[in-house]
Amino acid sequence: MTFTVIQYVLERLKAIGIRDVFGVPGDYSFPVNDAICNDPALRWIGCANELNAAYAADGYARIKGKAALCTTYGVGELSAINGIAGAYAEHLPIFHLVGMPKMSVQHSRAAMHHTLGDGEYGLFARMSEPVVCASAILTPQNVAYETERLIAQAFYHRRPVYMAFPADFADAPVLSTAAPFSPPGSDPAKLEAAVAAILAALEAAGTACVLPGVVIHRCGLVEEMQTIIDRSGLPFATMFMDKSVLDEQQPGFVGMYDGAIMTEDVRAFVEGRDLVLVIGSLATDFNTGAFTSRLDPARTIDIAHHHVHVGGKTYDNVELPDVLSALAARVTPREWPRIAATTLDGKSGSGADPITVEALYPRWAEFLRPGDLVVAETGTVSMGLGFALMPKGARFYNQTLWGSIGWATPAAVGAAVAAPEGRVVLLTGEGSHQLTAQEIGQFGRMGLKPVVFVLNNNGYLIERLLCKDPEIAYNDLAPWHYTELPHAFGCEGWFTARVTTCAELDAALEEAGKAERGAYVEVVTDTYAASPLAVKLHDALRAI
Amino acid sequence: MTFTVIQYVLERLKAIGIRDVFGVPGDYSFPVNDAICNDPALRWIGCANELNAAYAADGYARIKGKAALCTTYGVGELSAINGIAGAYAEHLPIFHLVGMPKMSVQHSRAAMHHTLGDGEYGLFARMSEPVVCASAILTPQNVAYETERLIAQAFYHRRPVYMAFPADFADAPVLSTAAPFSPPGSDPAKLEAAVAAILAALEAAGTACVLPGVVIHRCGLVEEMQTIIDRSGLPFATMFMDKSVLDEQQPGFVGMYDGAIMTEDVRAFVEGRDLVLVIGSLATDFNTGAFTSRLDPARTIDIAHHHVHVGGKTYDNVELPDVLSALAARVTPREWPRIAATTLDGKSGSGADPITVEALYPRWAEFLRPGDLVVAETGTVSMGLGFALMPKGARFYNQTLWGSIGWATPAAVGAAVAAPEGRVVLLTGEGSHQLTAQEIGQFGRMGLKPVVFVLNNNGYLIERLLCKDPEIAYNDLAPWHYTELPHAFGCEGWFTARVTTCAELDAALEEAGKAERGAYVEVVTDTYAASPLAVKLHDALRAI
Repeated sequence: MTFTVIQYVLERLKAIGIRDVFGVPGDYSFPVNDAICNDPALRWIGCANELNAAYAADGYARIKGKAALCTTYGVGELSAINGIAGAYAEHLPIFHLVGMPKMSVQHSRAAMHHTLGDGEYGLFARMSEPVVCASAILTPQNVAYETERLIAQAFYHRRPVYMAFPADFADAPVLSTAAPFSPPGSDPAKLEAAVAAILAALEAAGTACVLPGVVIHRCGLVEEMQTIIDRSGLPFATMFMDKSVLDEQQPGFVGMYDGAIMTEDVRAFVEGRDLVLVIGSLATDFNTGAFTSRLDPARTIDIAHHHVHVGGKTYDNVELPDVLSALAARVTPREWPRIAATTLDGKSGSGADPITVEALYPRWAEFLRPGDLVVAETGTVSMGLGFALMPKGARFYNQTLWGSIGWATPAAVGAAVAAPEGRVVLLTGEGSHQLTAQEIGQFGRMGLKPVVFVLNNNGYLIERLLCKDPEIAYNDLAPWHYTELPHAFGCEGWFTARVTTCAELDAALEEAGKAERGAYVEVVTDTYAASPLAVKLHDALRAI
Repeated sequence: MTFTVIQYVLERLKAIGIRDVFGVPGDYSFPVNDAICNDPALRWIGCANELNAAYAADGYARIKGKAALCTTYGVGELSAINGIAGAYAEHLPIFHLVGMPKMSVQHSRAAMHHTLGDGEYGLFARMSEPVVCASAILTPQNVAYETERLIAQAFYHRRPVYMAFPADFADAPVLSTAAPFSPPGSDPAKLEAAVAAILAALEAAGTACVLPGVVIHRCGLVEEMQTIIDRSGLPFATMFMDKSVLDEQQPGFVGMYDGAIMTEDVRAFVEGRDLVLVIGSLATDFNTGAFTSRLDPARTIDIAHHHVHVGGKTYDNVELPDVLSALAARVTPREWPRIAATTLDGKSGSGADPITVEALYPRWAEFLRPGDLVVAETGTVSMGLGFALMPKGARFYNQTLWGSIGWATPAAVGAAVAAPEGRVVLLTGEGSHQLTAQEIGQFGRMGLKPVVFVLNNNGYLIERLLCKDPEIAYNDLAPWHYTELPHAFGCEGWFTARVTTCAELDAALEEAGKAERGAYVEVVTDTYAASPLAVKLHDALRAI
């Protein structure tokens, strides 16, 4: 059978494991939309809008390692572009399929809808370039090799790619062939030198620990990393963006390392080691306690995505998978000194007590079950729950670097689509929720059963904490009746509750834990009930 | 008093008539947010998300001639960028104020939140460039003259501009001065030649008509255009994007000219004139009946924004305001042949009859009052109501060229903010409404009283009409309970109704017409109840 351009691309995406495509249809993308819907091995996940679709693809890619998004020309792709930028920042390969006007129309320079009216058809692809690692306008001639190139780039960089389909080319038969690219390997000599240097440094160190990072997870190397921990006996801490990259219920986990602003015992432990192995972690502001972490370069080994820095030397063309495989095979067991990780302090409050921070976060931590997929919105919510130990097999997802509020609600939809057998627990502030709340409707439409907690603290709390005048008008929000939203958005039979006291919270947590459909709990706290990290961030950020 | 950088810009924006700033706050934009909120002459209009804020600014600018939008770096500005692109396409000057990280942080190339983590700080400004007519990163040194340049550019092109404020510069004192730029004038000789040629052509013509366009409205030249009509006696038709640029309740109005696909009598009239004056109108697909209009170039004069084409010659450096002033002063009265405009056929259906197209659109037309601000979403709704005569002083707003679904709901908020004394009537399909529905909460929060009609036809109807297989899954939507939305979004005491029969529709229209707060009516029709233009568009678009 001869494939059309779009069929060819979809075949290749299926071959790399894509099963679902998030998006919003549009007339220029009909050939793409049609091909997806007509392929029995693919599922179209229609979202309420394109940014939500991009966030959902982001959430899906965090679990499946890749995702696909489909939008129409101009209006659709630009609406999604902030979500694509987030996927770029956070190392998530999303295949962004964009329907374009026919090439014959583009050549005519006609002033079509969804254009600026100036006959220019290349502008939007150019606008996407900074936030994708590769892009192509696909033709019958180039589709075979461009598709291989884009797949290879997306996986090498773990970043999004842009694939545009002129409507008249999408359904035309493919006119070329190409074989998949082999993934780039390491320079053997440099790999050996780097691994030897790492092992020698470990051998020489009296104390050591690992900071395993999010890139390990993105590259699908969690098993290799766990093997290194298991065989070496090395303790590890994680930074914020890296939370739960390895299971937190293991003796080697010493806790969250957040520079000097939180968990002083972990800071002292990490910074006091003879050797720290930073593996696939990114030195961003929120990953370093607003740059208050102090890792002595002379005692730090950096094993990055495509290079290793050890012993004052940088080894380029050395790939993370190869380094981890080699280390997993060659590390030797040892009794390394370690400390025990702590979790949130015991819960306080009961009965008619208001829901304080001390009451709330330990209860949320206790609510979580093994294997939960926790999607925590940027802000005081994630900053509070980030210091709870995750149950066995549970994963904590947060958009730590890009930090686009509104991300969590659709990302939770994407996570639930990716792992329908798991339980998704979405925790969001109400300010963030307002940006993208309508995607709650997707859970109902698809029969998914998340537990949603909306923290209502009467405005943008994280901003009240960071700005000059916390009472200033821009931190206020439209006063919604949150618990009415799930039904309004078509979620039938959900458990909903609005809780203002500890007793109400306890009752709602119990109900939510056994709800047969989705659960949606609005947790009302004081305007300034902020998690400790959120409180401390103000000064730390101002010092940058 | 010495102004800070942001104060200086706000002073200048106030001087050109800006009173409201739409936006979502963020930490990098706090200095900008603070300055806006602390200025008693400015109002911060916090929106649920940035795209909605951009659409609201678009709606506001359609009425006020300009608008201001404020977002934060990266996450905020990119979320808004599709709305900015729409304002570019549709000739609306929006001043987009973007808060950036401190210049000292930019210089350090630190991996801050809301960046891609690569130390690059200029990427997002570059991404905006294709959809603004000018941009600047404002410093104490350049703010005075850059602000004048951006204001001049925004008004000359009637397009958005991008103004970025590094957080450490925003509050620094201004170090330069500049005077406002004079608006560019016409070349006097070319202006005289062009006007003389236009008048001579009119003199020689036996029949003639005008096609007044949306750019007249954008340039604030409606009065001059009306004077030309009044003094010359010329009849006029309008194309879709240009609807209601002049009052439709005047004898000179002959109706909607939509190429060969609608209103055959208007087509025959326009195309049969000896002379057609196209003034400030754009030859886009939906403005020309999908390019089925046939205006003989030899009998057509094009009076564009910055040039005139008449008698086979193009006169550049001739400005629309100057041409219209000259014509208003020099046209002479004459009895030009004309035809009478028709409106939608008399309404049909009653009692338990279903709500057909013939039942619905005439009722909606009848519901409108003089002076209404009608915001009609792209799709079957606007294509139906577009052929109703607007009452005296009523304006019909539609995003005809950019055509981004979801635009109408926030744009109606912006219109209501701009004209709180007017009545805003929002008409949208439910598919489009889902993209941006949460902005309904703004009406309630601000005590605004729109009438909202949500046409529920069980999916994306316009797409069912345009695509190959109307029943394909991507045209389906999550099944919302629309009438629950206003209360869930905090609109207290609104009249809401869901109507499925003509009797219910009649009752709801009566209640909505006298509602003391907002009104929100879900109108349920058959899945394929499409306005005639929407039905005809499928074949017309495929022929392009």
